[in-house]
Amino acid sequence: MTKQAALDLLLGKIKESKSFHLALALIHWDAMVTGVPTKSYAARGAAEGWLSMETFKRMMAPETLEAIETLEAHDSELTETERAMTRIAGRTYRKAKAIPPEELGAFRALVSESNQVWEKAREKRDYEMMLPYYEKIVTYQRKLCDLYGYEKHPYDALLDDYEIGANVEMLDGFFAALRKEIVPLLKDITNSGGEAEEITGKFAIEKQKELMPWLTDFTGYDRTRGKVGEVEHPFCLTINRNDVRITTKYHEDNLLSSIYSIIHECGHGIYEQNMSEELEPYALADCASMGMHESQSRLYENMIGRSRTFAERLLPNLQEKFDFFKNWDTDTLYRAVNIARPSLIRIEADELTYSLHIMVRYELEKSLIEGNIKAANLPTLWADKYEEFLGIRPQNLAEGVLQDVHWSAGLFGYFPSYAVGTAYGAQMMNTIRTKAGIDVDAAIKKEDLTPITNWLRENIHSQGSIHLPNDLLKRATGETFNPQYYVNYLKEKFTGIYLKSTVNS
Amino acid sequence: MTKQAALDLLLGKIKESKSFHLALALIHWDAMVTGVPTKSYAARGAAEGWLSMETFKRMMAPETLEAIETLEAHDSELTETERAMTRIAGRTYRKAKAIPPEELGAFRALVSESNQVWEKAREKRDYEMMLPYYEKIVTYQRKLCDLYGYEKHPYDALLDDYEIGANVEMLDGFFAALRKEIVPLLKDITNSGGEAEEITGKFAIEKQKELMPWLTDFTGYDRTRGKVGEVEHPFCLTINRNDVRITTKYHEDNLLSSIYSIIHECGHGIYEQNMSEELEPYALADCASMGMHESQSRLYENMIGRSRTFAERLLPNLQEKFDFFKNWDTDTLYRAVNIARPSLIRIEADELTYSLHIMVRYELEKSLIEGNIKAANLPTLWADKYEEFLGIRPQNLAEGVLQDVHWSAGLFGYFPSYAVGTAYGAQMMNTIRTKAGIDVDAAIKKEDLTPITNWLRENIHSQGSIHLPNDLLKRATGETFNPQYYVNYLKEKFTGIYLKSTVNS
Repeated sequence: MTKQAALDLLLGKIKESKSFHLALALIHWDAMVTGVPTKSYAARGAAEGWLSMETFKRMMAPETLEAIETLEAHDSELTETERAMTRIAGRTYRKAKAIPPEELGAFRALVSESNQVWEKAREKRDYEMMLPYYEKIVTYQRKLCDLYGYEKHPYDALLDDYEIGANVEMLDGFFAALRKEIVPLLKDITNSGGEAEEITGKFAIEKQKELMPWLTDFTGYDRTRGKVGEVEHPFCLTINRNDVRITTKYHEDNLLSSIYSIIHECGHGIYEQNMSEELEPYALADCASMGMHESQSRLYENMIGRSRTFAERLLPNLQEKFDFFKNWDTDTLYRAVNIARPSLIRIEADELTYSLHIMVRYELEKSLIEGNIKAANLPTLWADKYEEFLGIRPQNLAEGVLQDVHWSAGLFGYFPSYAVGTAYGAQMMNTIRTKAGIDVDAAIKKEDLTPITNWLRENIHSQGSIHLPNDLLKRATGETFNPQYYVNYLKEKFTGIYLKSTVNS
Repeated sequence: MTKQAALDLLLGKIKESKSFHLALALIHWDAMVTGVPTKSYAARGAAEGWLSMETFKRMMAPETLEAIETLEAHDSELTETERAMTRIAGRTYRKAKAIPPEELGAFRALVSESNQVWEKAREKRDYEMMLPYYEKIVTYQRKLCDLYGYEKHPYDALLDDYEIGANVEMLDGFFAALRKEIVPLLKDITNSGGEAEEITGKFAIEKQKELMPWLTDFTGYDRTRGKVGEVEHPFCLTINRNDVRITTKYHEDNLLSSIYSIIHECGHGIYEQNMSEELEPYALADCASMGMHESQSRLYENMIGRSRTFAERLLPNLQEKFDFFKNWDTDTLYRAVNIARPSLIRIEADELTYSLHIMVRYELEKSLIEGNIKAANLPTLWADKYEEFLGIRPQNLAEGVLQDVHWSAGLFGYFPSYAVGTAYGAQMMNTIRTKAGIDVDAAIKKEDLTPITNWLRENIHSQGSIHLPNDLLKRATGETFNPQYYVNYLKEKFTGIYLKSTVNS
């Protein structure tokens, strides 16, 4: 195969897969947002399964490997985009081929059953129901590490699936920093009282909805190249780069939920909308990693959306709609959107404690993969870790080890990307404020994030998946991943909110 | 190829095509109902085009023909469904193969351009702009007749594309009956004054929407196996038999429009929802023809929805929502929903005159295909026919020959199915009332159409496309297509409304 033939073949496969992707994305949107008659689940599921299988089969055809190997042999003649395309296609192909089809089939069947059992087990708070599934899934994950192969630690092989290049060495360092500085910080805040005003009562959903255009415009998410839908569990879905849809859920008794889910999904959406069009044919108009995606959603949600300056801009909008805020001032709102309190449920965790929830899961996953702990002991180990990092113990399995779907869904190595992504964002924000010299607060005050978004577009978004996450980070910030920026950011912010008077007194 | 291998192959192709169909249907729904960012048109169009092409290519592969021929050779051993599947697959395959790919490509390009020119030509009322396109399209259509082949009349080859088995002989008979009895009836009504109360003013769209559940439930359309959307031009779209979606458009100044578009689309929807599940794998859970589909929508819309008994049930619902109807009685509403008046625009035509609009088009199409008239003369010929059948002449091209998209879209032979379908419905309704002995008015009065729908389900809907339209009609009503039932129905109904007092006086 000539180099040109190999390029044509891969580009053709990518083009095909885009059509399948668009169809599958719209099937998903239709199911989640438009809503689907229950009786049509089976026929839809069959079609969705067939389309997924078909696009996978086409990409996994033997000629794909031939094209990849041809391009690898011509590595020095490739452009940067061609090389990145080859790298990603080769990685995807080889990872998929590493698993014997019968193993994969058996695992999929296991996970499908396991997911259903998990829902019941969580409801009944019955760990015995779940245990045999967790055991089999861990066994499979350990086998998977061998099939994928790894250099230092078997868990590295799984981490790489979600956060390419991440490994135990890097994550141990990251979580050690959190353990050293954030765990004591949380204790200090808890001991000091950590008081914040609660936002309570009912907030009419129609009025909440009126805030949506202001919020999305504030972030810079382009509604003319997307759409905002309503769902049970908010997500961002890319149909194509000019149709990037986000979703939210309005709760009458939880005003902050929709506000921050909108900002969060806008962060994801902006990343997708800003990817360079030139990368599309190469399948590189895609996130550098899951963590990189999460870095954008959390940067917008937390570092911008939970800043004091944003609270200052948000307050009059809230006061205009809801009498509840009549006598509030900026500082009260700033504290209310920055509660810092030990909690048991990850998805409801605040900015300060979120990564500690992830640390619990990381340490347990790592030990399970190492074979140092048994799935049977997870409920106790889980509770012990919560006590150690957050100072509280779950009272039942639903608020303990059975709260997340990930393990029953066979997703090992996934959790760390949430926390790592958040920390990437802090590292970027540091560069934005310092080396790039952008006045973040002035931009928020002006309700025009253009300087910030321009920096992110140029340095992160537009780059798609040309670079590995750590390379991208180094190009953008001058350093590979350094968790200290995140630790410093959290310390400064939350000390400022909760401990300043204590410090000063 | 063995018979079993041929069956497996065809059933496999059909299964694949269903997945493509589902994806394409949802892409369409998303574009028409959910709404799509303008900037994403190109990428979506490319994906849609690729998916359509891919499913077509798969169905048109050489092994499909081999399977069809194998099954044809085993005809006597096939079950009824296998035989019908073979018939339809063979017909589709051979019709598609009859057109040389380069001809088809050139025609598609012509039509794509022609459609755009038509929009401008209609706006500017400029026939010269359109003429070269009409000429080329007619030339292509005449060539198509030869490529498809025909026994008696070249136009038969085109009619068969939309209404399988229909031909000039049958349609000449049909339209002759209309010309003989409906044209004079319309003149009589016009001469007698044909007065009906106008429904004028503004009707709040929110209140119109509240009527929707009542209307859909009345017809028996199952909303738990579908969905009702809003669009510019209403349609019915089958995702699968358990997800049959209908749409409507609410006009503040045209209350009847949404009411009757809902009932109309429900008729289409009920047909799709009631097709036998067992026919699905054979691709036979599909309408017998376009006319058969239209027979169901118009039977519900006109023969039920514009009946006096329905007006009796509708009136209190309208009075509850709109003061406008405070002093109305059933007969006033019955006349208001049954205006019978010459008009120029087909899609706004009333029940009595609708088929006369089709007759104009049928006669012109037939003559164009015969080569007896020239496209250059269409504006005058069109106006003459309107004068002859409806007694009025269009004052401009937008209300004349340029009103419909069909010819510029290359759709010749399509129009007659609208009128033929309506007449099928009258023939069915006659059987329902007489041979089946169903008390239609009692059912409407009880707001429970079950006896009617059961008959339709058993005799028409559930049969899908196992039988040719005329065979289906014969099995259901004991006769092949007989337009007299339609003529009698119109005469009786509209004489009753507008001419009874005259007759009695």
